[in-house]
Amino acid sequence: MGERIGFIGLGIMGRPMALNLLRAGYSLAVHARRVESMRPLIEAGASACGSPAELADRSDVIFTMVSDTPDVESVILGENGVLAGVHPGSVVVDMSTISAAVTRRLAERLGERGVEMLDAPVSGGEAGAIDGRLSIMVGGAESTFARVLPLFHVMGENIVHVGGHGAGQVCKSCNQILVGATIVAVAEAMRLAQASDVDPARVRAALLGGFAGSRVLDVHGQRMIDENFEPGFKARLHQKDMRIVAEAAQELGLSLPSANAVARYLDVLVGQGLGELDSSAIYLVLRDLSREPSAHSSLPSGIG
Amino acid sequence: MGERIGFIGLGIMGRPMALNLLRAGYSLAVHARRVESMRPLIEAGASACGSPAELADRSDVIFTMVSDTPDVESVILGENGVLAGVHPGSVVVDMSTISAAVTRRLAERLGERGVEMLDAPVSGGEAGAIDGRLSIMVGGAESTFARVLPLFHVMGENIVHVGGHGAGQVCKSCNQILVGATIVAVAEAMRLAQASDVDPARVRAALLGGFAGSRVLDVHGQRMIDENFEPGFKARLHQKDMRIVAEAAQELGLSLPSANAVARYLDVLVGQGLGELDSSAIYLVLRDLSREPSAHSSLPSGIG
Repeated sequence: MGERIGFIGLGIMGRPMALNLLRAGYSLAVHARRVESMRPLIEAGASACGSPAELADRSDVIFTMVSDTPDVESVILGENGVLAGVHPGSVVVDMSTISAAVTRRLAERLGERGVEMLDAPVSGGEAGAIDGRLSIMVGGAESTFARVLPLFHVMGENIVHVGGHGAGQVCKSCNQILVGATIVAVAEAMRLAQASDVDPARVRAALLGGFAGSRVLDVHGQRMIDENFEPGFKARLHQKDMRIVAEAAQELGLSLPSANAVARYLDVLVGQGLGELDSSAIYLVLRDLSREPSAHSSLPSGIG
Repeated sequence: MGERIGFIGLGIMGRPMALNLLRAGYSLAVHARRVESMRPLIEAGASACGSPAELADRSDVIFTMVSDTPDVESVILGENGVLAGVHPGSVVVDMSTISAAVTRRLAERLGERGVEMLDAPVSGGEAGAIDGRLSIMVGGAESTFARVLPLFHVMGENIVHVGGHGAGQVCKSCNQILVGATIVAVAEAMRLAQASDVDPARVRAALLGGFAGSRVLDVHGQRMIDENFEPGFKARLHQKDMRIVAEAAQELGLSLPSANAVARYLDVLVGQGLGELDSSAIYLVLRDLSREPSAHSSLPSGIG
């Protein structure tokens, strides 16, 4: 318990993750842009910091859990950012989902100051964060991974060191492609069953035991059958993650058509004002494709 | 063991399924278009029949396991077909993968003669057929399902009664959509990892434990990493199954874009003379999309 821990970003995911560290007995400094976000942590025994620089000055291991690539860049490189206060020998662990390429540049900047970095995006959603059962995909040096592993174990249970800097983010992008494309396929299967007067619940049950079985068929298949799209994982966040995938594909000169199709479904869903629903609400967009032929032509090409 | 069993269609799947019935102690009549296909069964104790009609005349439960919709129609309705020899009270169990709409019409025709029908397509491939571990998706009357269930247990282990006539075929279509679309997504994830200099094997291992986990990621992800596309399940058969999906979607007025994309990948693969490979060789088509920009424009629209 010798490490002094700092945690920046106390939103839906960051707050329960920080609380779990505090409950595990670690000394915790916290920072968030909005003061009210810090309150539940302070009440639980954390100390508040006025800036990322102040937090970094007081911490050996600095976690960041913010929304997007520019937020991480700003928290680390910006005025009164982590880089302005951090000490050599400390570690910055970014658990946000952001660009792998930017991650590698940040790791280089921190490395010049003798500070190690890990990228450690998660999956498992708010429920996984609260229960300390997140999947954590980690990129960076093996020795740094070993140093931070006891802290990861407080927050998650499926923790894998994937490779060097950025490898955690690449793995998260792969995760979001697979989850999104499987949601689309499950939605099509459920639609085919319904339109054929076959009970989708029995199709789901039959397929779960065989080669078509997946966690997405299990969990999101049930959401579609119930038409219950309470998040879970919000469509607008999945949309953001698929934009990161698309940017990476463009940088790398890769063609990823099914990832593109997922992104377009999420664009339509968010564009319809449904971005706060679970991303499995892609089912609703697909349903409308067949229900109202006129909606068909208004969709971005490649979906219909 | 009172039921006299007949089995029509002794190909890659039908032969081991029939052998398992024989080994379980059932009396078995067999028929195949090619006499040499019957030989291993006759050597194992089955009796050969010269036509489906002769086989139906001698059997209480008649299994069919042939290639495609017209083959089943011909075996049942054609000259010297099942309908010409079958007795009231017998059951026809079609284990081929064919059209749900045609299945319903065949069930009606047989029903007029007092003959029950089940549609019972399978998944699990040649290995599942040999080991008696197929998944069997069944449509038809509950009482008929109960009557045939002991025979299904000889051939498979994940046996689900999905609904009325055609429901087994609809479920199989859903299975093929899910497997195909997940293959495409896994291929994209593996490509993204490789292009990002991240080890695809570690990505696969990391994702298997989390929300993106699936049998397809497990089995086909490994095939892609090894670039080993020995079937398994042949691309040309998956292509045929996706054609059945497309026909059903058109009849029902459904838009199933990701099923269409899977079909197009399989069309390209088969068109390249690679139809005998496992359908996870879709990976090779995707890889060529990014490797050779010139190949891009020659693909059917909607993939690139």
